Amino acid sequence: MEDFDKDQKEKVEIEEEEFEGAEEQREEEMESRFDELNELLDARQFSKFAHELGEMNPVDVADFFSELDNKRIPAVFKLLGKDIAAEVFAELDSDMQKYIIEAMTDREITRIIEELALDDAAETISELPANIVTRIMKNVTPETRKEINRYLSYPEGSAGSEMTAEFVNLRAEMTVAQAIEYIRKTGVDKETVYYAYVTDERRVLQGTVSFKDLLFSRGDTLIKDLMTEDPIYAATVDDREYAADTIAKYGLLALPIVDKEMRLVGIVTVDDAIDVINEEATEDIEIMAGITPTDKPYLKTGVFETWKKRFPWLLILMIAAVFSSMVITHYEEAIGTYAILAAFFPMLMNTGGNAGSQSSVAIIRALSLDEISMKNFFKVLWKEFRVSLLCAACLSIVCFAKTMAIDFKFQAQEILANGAVQNNIAIAAIVSVTAFCAVVIAKVVGVIFPMAAKKIGLDPAVMASPFITTVVDIITLVVYFAIASLALGI
Amino acid sequence: MEDFDKDQKEKVEIEEEEFEGAEEQREEEMESRFDELNELLDARQFSKFAHELGEMNPVDVADFFSELDNKRIPAVFKLLGKDIAAEVFAELDSDMQKYIIEAMTDREITRIIEELALDDAAETISELPANIVTRIMKNVTPETRKEINRYLSYPEGSAGSEMTAEFVNLRAEMTVAQAIEYIRKTGVDKETVYYAYVTDERRVLQGTVSFKDLLFSRGDTLIKDLMTEDPIYAATVDDREYAADTIAKYGLLALPIVDKEMRLVGIVTVDDAIDVINEEATEDIEIMAGITPTDKPYLKTGVFETWKKRFPWLLILMIAAVFSSMVITHYEEAIGTYAILAAFFPMLMNTGGNAGSQSSVAIIRALSLDEISMKNFFKVLWKEFRVSLLCAACLSIVCFAKTMAIDFKFQAQEILANGAVQNNIAIAAIVSVTAFCAVVIAKVVGVIFPMAAKKIGLDPAVMASPFITTVVDIITLVVYFAIASLALGI
Repeated sequence: MEDFDKDQKEKVEIEEEEFEGAEEQREEEMESRFDELNELLDARQFSKFAHELGEMNPVDVADFFSELDNKRIPAVFKLLGKDIAAEVFAELDSDMQKYIIEAMTDREITRIIEELALDDAAETISELPANIVTRIMKNVTPETRKEINRYLSYPEGSAGSEMTAEFVNLRAEMTVAQAIEYIRKTGVDKETVYYAYVTDERRVLQGTVSFKDLLFSRGDTLIKDLMTEDPIYAATVDDREYAADTIAKYGLLALPIVDKEMRLVGIVTVDDAIDVINEEATEDIEIMAGITPTDKPYLKTGVFETWKKRFPWLLILMIAAVFSSMVITHYEEAIGTYAILAAFFPMLMNTGGNAGSQSSVAIIRALSLDEISMKNFFKVLWKEFRVSLLCAACLSIVCFAKTMAIDFKFQAQEILANGAVQNNIAIAAIVSVTAFCAVVIAKVVGVIFPMAAKKIGLDPAVMASPFITTVVDIITLVVYFAIASLALGI
Repeated sequence: MEDFDKDQKEKVEIEEEEFEGAEEQREEEMESRFDELNELLDARQFSKFAHELGEMNPVDVADFFSELDNKRIPAVFKLLGKDIAAEVFAELDSDMQKYIIEAMTDREITRIIEELALDDAAETISELPANIVTRIMKNVTPETRKEINRYLSYPEGSAGSEMTAEFVNLRAEMTVAQAIEYIRKTGVDKETVYYAYVTDERRVLQGTVSFKDLLFSRGDTLIKDLMTEDPIYAATVDDREYAADTIAKYGLLALPIVDKEMRLVGIVTVDDAIDVINEEATEDIEIMAGITPTDKPYLKTGVFETWKKRFPWLLILMIAAVFSSMVITHYEEAIGTYAILAAFFPMLMNTGGNAGSQSSVAIIRALSLDEISMKNFFKVLWKEFRVSLLCAACLSIVCFAKTMAIDFKFQAQEILANGAVQNNIAIAAIVSVTAFCAVVIAKVVGVIFPMAAKKIGLDPAVMASPFITTVVDIITLVVYFAIASLALGI
């Protein structure tokens, strides 16, 4: 393969080295644009400032807001044109939304909430303090209030809580021409017009049709002959991760969400699916590092809040280490004689911990991406067992050589302070056999724990490095002293 | 907020408990469908089998293939209808693709490769062995060969390597009616028709227009009056992660990719962006656990391959632990006297390691999601320092109490084997002060290392748990013995 147009490849690479790409360029552009905006604000040139904001993407405007001092936000927000105010508002984090709502009149609140997509309105409300929620709910139309309440009734983390009700609904008996006309008339405020959903008179989902299908069909074709029957869907009660993963797996732009009577109640769009995927990955990563997950960005969590997310895990793991201490205390006398044994604690425990983390994390991620399931348990265990034998064999050989070469500098025996003779070869052998056992046990534990967690309905991510390390430490120490007792007769 | 329609909420929850959701339902459906397909295959009812496959989503067909024995795949693949063969082929992993291509005639190869989207064809080819690639390249049209070579010339992991060249290209002078007509005529094979890209005669990107914009505009509107000028784009040389993150950030369905002359050369679509986001998250997670990342699913990597991805890290970390051993060896004599000191090694090292992992992982993830950048260094450091003081203070108090209550069972002093007196309060104090220092140092190290890695162009994920743990171990032991020396006069 390397033979194909190798010259061309090299040429392209050389040319492109001089070109830094869009990323840096865009960053610089944004920074200078933000500087300009700040200058306009400082010079109180508000109309020019508002005009500039109006030209920008709402996401970038929200970025600009997040660099402002919180106290200035409400005043600056009021400078936004009607058309983009709601879009920018939806992109802001809840702290900023709170500041803005607090500074608004009731009429302004009504306008902004009514302008928001229903799912954004519900999300905003679910994160605001109760007194502000009361104020908002008093000011919106009864219809909006009802819809918002419906959203709030879906459990957090469910597909229902992520969906939008603004989708295009067609009937099977329509023709393509009628459908296109209908979409042109009603579609402006829909979250997407690129997928339409066909329902019967009881609102039961019958099929989906993409706008592409409509576009490339004859105008008199009936929707029922064009639609994909038996469409892929999720239920409101499904995990939002399932909805997002389904969108990812089938490459969809939106996924219909049904209630338990198979009635279509909303859709989850691909942009929300990406957010879910990113949030769930962050959650997994945080749990794996012994942090209670939060959906706030790093710089938005305070010191005390961060402490609350981390301290309990540190505490539990510290207390769990009592068992390691007990093992060592049990052999206190042996350590008094062979203090050198203690020198290998960190290496043995780290090696075991690292080997266990590798397996457990690989398995947690594979479970989370649906690459493996419970039915693969023995296959996975068998694979990890063989990997562990390979790793353990290689490591223990290096370990023996390293112990003799570095720790004992090739001295086969040493005279201890109390005049006794220390057999270095024996100790190097004890250490490397322990390393072997630790790696094998750790990798097996690293399979069993996450899969057992999944089986009993716990999040497998809990069984990552910190937990596995603590468990493997205890086992490693027991093995170490057992082997040392046998070999040294202590 | 909880007051709003609480009754309704409870009702919904109770109702929905009985309903298991679409996830389980779909899994069962798929399993029984796969069973049926296998029965048809065993009964050699090939035409019925082929018909059933034709009704299924190509992604599900690929799933079915992945459960077949590799040797059966080529024969079964030949049963697929022309229309879905290429789509299914694109979903298969490279091992299966290899088996199929090897069993094909030259004519069949030509047909399938020409049917594939160019980016899928290039990806397939980049993962096949050289002899098969030669066969393929011999059999495709010169045009396709040239296009495939162009793809292969983009560096792996670049936006260029992820893009597709099948996009809709409009001119600024067209009217909306002309544009829609043009899309209807030329759009069938395009990757998406929902975004169109406006270029000038030199193919320089001028703007984007969504199909929604076209749909809701008058037919005689000019594209140049409708298009979004100054569109968001990425360059072929940008990291594919940048392209994917940009799509996620702005909620796009596709992102235009330009060369260094700003000529439009392709687009990255949102479905590819999701794959990139998932792959990059997996990569981060693997590196954080001390595994060299691979883009193959868990069950597709062999034992030896898995060993190669894991062993080097275990080896390096094991050898790095030499420094911990050195510290302990240096104090061998002290341990001979106060063997109890060794009992707290695991607890102290784990606590330090866990505290450091929490910070480093939180920061690695925040860097990866662009929530923080280098300019936030001092802000982040200051936050983590305060969090560490809180965590350290609470932990060291609990640690003192725990050491006295559990490890020493409230005995203020103990008579050692050699008749000496051991001051338990002093030792508990040494241990808890060390725990305090270890947590603070670990959290600070957990900020500095990932951000320094980013600064010098390394992947911050390397600075996660395994690495931080090893570094923090050494520091913790030095602090421990320094404090013990002072307090116990050893």
